Amino acid sequence: MKIGIYGYGNLGKGVECAVLQNPDIEIAGVFTRRDPATIQTQTGAPVYSAADAAAHKDEIDVMIICGGSATDLPVLTPRLAKDFNVLDSFDTHANIPEHFAKVDAAARENGHIALISAGWDPGMFSLARLYGCTILPNGKDYTFWGRGVSQGHSDAIRRIEGVEDARQYTVPVESALEAVRSGSEPELTTRMKHTRECYVVAKEGADKAAIEQAIKTMPNYFADYDTTVTFITREELLRDHSALPHGGFVIRTGHTGFNNENTHTIEYNLKLDSNPQFTSLAMAAFARAICRMSKRGDTGCKTVFDVAPADLSPLSGEELRKKLL
Amino acid sequence: MKIGIYGYGNLGKGVECAVLQNPDIEIAGVFTRRDPATIQTQTGAPVYSAADAAAHKDEIDVMIICGGSATDLPVLTPRLAKDFNVLDSFDTHANIPEHFAKVDAAARENGHIALISAGWDPGMFSLARLYGCTILPNGKDYTFWGRGVSQGHSDAIRRIEGVEDARQYTVPVESALEAVRSGSEPELTTRMKHTRECYVVAKEGADKAAIEQAIKTMPNYFADYDTTVTFITREELLRDHSALPHGGFVIRTGHTGFNNENTHTIEYNLKLDSNPQFTSLAMAAFARAICRMSKRGDTGCKTVFDVAPADLSPLSGEELRKKLL
Repeated sequence: MKIGIYGYGNLGKGVECAVLQNPDIEIAGVFTRRDPATIQTQTGAPVYSAADAAAHKDEIDVMIICGGSATDLPVLTPRLAKDFNVLDSFDTHANIPEHFAKVDAAARENGHIALISAGWDPGMFSLARLYGCTILPNGKDYTFWGRGVSQGHSDAIRRIEGVEDARQYTVPVESALEAVRSGSEPELTTRMKHTRECYVVAKEGADKAAIEQAIKTMPNYFADYDTTVTFITREELLRDHSALPHGGFVIRTGHTGFNNENTHTIEYNLKLDSNPQFTSLAMAAFARAICRMSKRGDTGCKTVFDVAPADLSPLSGEELRKKLL
Repeated sequence: MKIGIYGYGNLGKGVECAVLQNPDIEIAGVFTRRDPATIQTQTGAPVYSAADAAAHKDEIDVMIICGGSATDLPVLTPRLAKDFNVLDSFDTHANIPEHFAKVDAAARENGHIALISAGWDPGMFSLARLYGCTILPNGKDYTFWGRGVSQGHSDAIRRIEGVEDARQYTVPVESALEAVRSGSEPELTTRMKHTRECYVVAKEGADKAAIEQAIKTMPNYFADYDTTVTFITREELLRDHSALPHGGFVIRTGHTGFNNENTHTIEYNLKLDSNPQFTSLAMAAFARAICRMSKRGDTGCKTVFDVAPADLSPLSGEELRKKLL
């Protein structure tokens, strides 16, 4: 099976790396909006101009689109679905229905298949939520994120005047996790679930008190959280905060029995050293699945909910039943 | 959607209870090998003789077979697949390929669909293993069970001379769990992963030392484990050990990066107050899925690996994307 990688940032490089662990997948080409001559891929995969992508449509089973959810994917995924089977990691939860509708229309019109929002959240965490609430209908679920770097929150800090660079960690509150695991189904406010740790490099002469104040009062991003701000040097940022770890917890608790006398807890958790590399591996597996679904004649937009798990694996049904069931 | 419940023990009663939490599912009938007149269901569902099941085939979308894996299901599931779409919780891992082949042949010949081995292991744990090893191909997975009651091991103790009753708990070793979670991919022997706690009621005058010796040296069941034996009274057994809790952990760790420099941990764990009630809820969800698959014309034997998660849920695709993705 042959994939294209559209976009060669952290995620695109992650997909390239993921392919090394999936011998049934080959990279037909990396597509970039930069000058292809300036890019050397890690694996020697050929680099083409994004503008020429359509010329390669017969060489590519699935185009994996590695762009940002804010402005790139809402345009790119529907557009590329005209020429390719496509897959993205669109992660703006509130806009998923709209994105789905656009991609679905483009894919159907052109007889292609698409899968949006592959990754871990949305993605594996969504699956944990679906399995959890389906099997324990009389219950409640909770998603916690972290400890990990939120790129959106780090970017928000960088836009404050006087900030040179920043890294923000989202941290789940351990006591809230324990309360949830107990099955008591607590009502938790935003502040009770997560804290936010900010590591900030200030520009020379910047007003640090003003920066700290601007962060802690920023609506949506920080105002509803207990936030700590630590000023560090550029060297410290590079040394201690270059990685992109992340993870989190999806916990579903519920009750069964004719008198609801029994409590059950389902927990799915991830601890990831590299958010983009894990996301890329999930994308590679779902690319394999939609390639198979496409060969069976399926078209239109799908999500992780529509993929039978067996289609993700390189193993045959027989091997899966023998080794993993 | 209408189900039949074939067998009315712990599991059959669990399915009856599970249906109360799934308003789109109705019970057409409970089928028993005992005299139907002697059985009063909790919900008032009608009870019929197992021998008359075929007469009800037009009233039932899926027959849920609640029998034991040792002798019941290998016979019942292929036989009932001739008249019904069927679902079971067959859990003898080593015999799954053989059971699958028989059920598949019977279901296909008669245009029915079947799903075997629904539950939590096999079932949800199998899914955790499949998702885990597919997304982290360069890694290793571990399954731990407990703390929970193993009915097979309890039965094995009961067969020892001088034993009146017994309850056996399988307990995962915390230090082994921690070693696995670290991503170090330890090699663990059987003894390092689990301990076994046995609570035994001895018959009057029985030789307790001989019973303890017989348990601890029993091949396959106990000889390879650190086993503790505690003698208790019948009253203590009833008071402290009547429940059927269980659970466990599926942990996959793996490495990514061009130099395998990043470690990732995926953990799925269950803590269940009632093993049969949780198993039953999983069975109800998979029954919904195969009912839908059957309506789309699908036939033959399936497993949890073949079911797209969306088919498990009573929610529409649109609702799922909006609320859970």
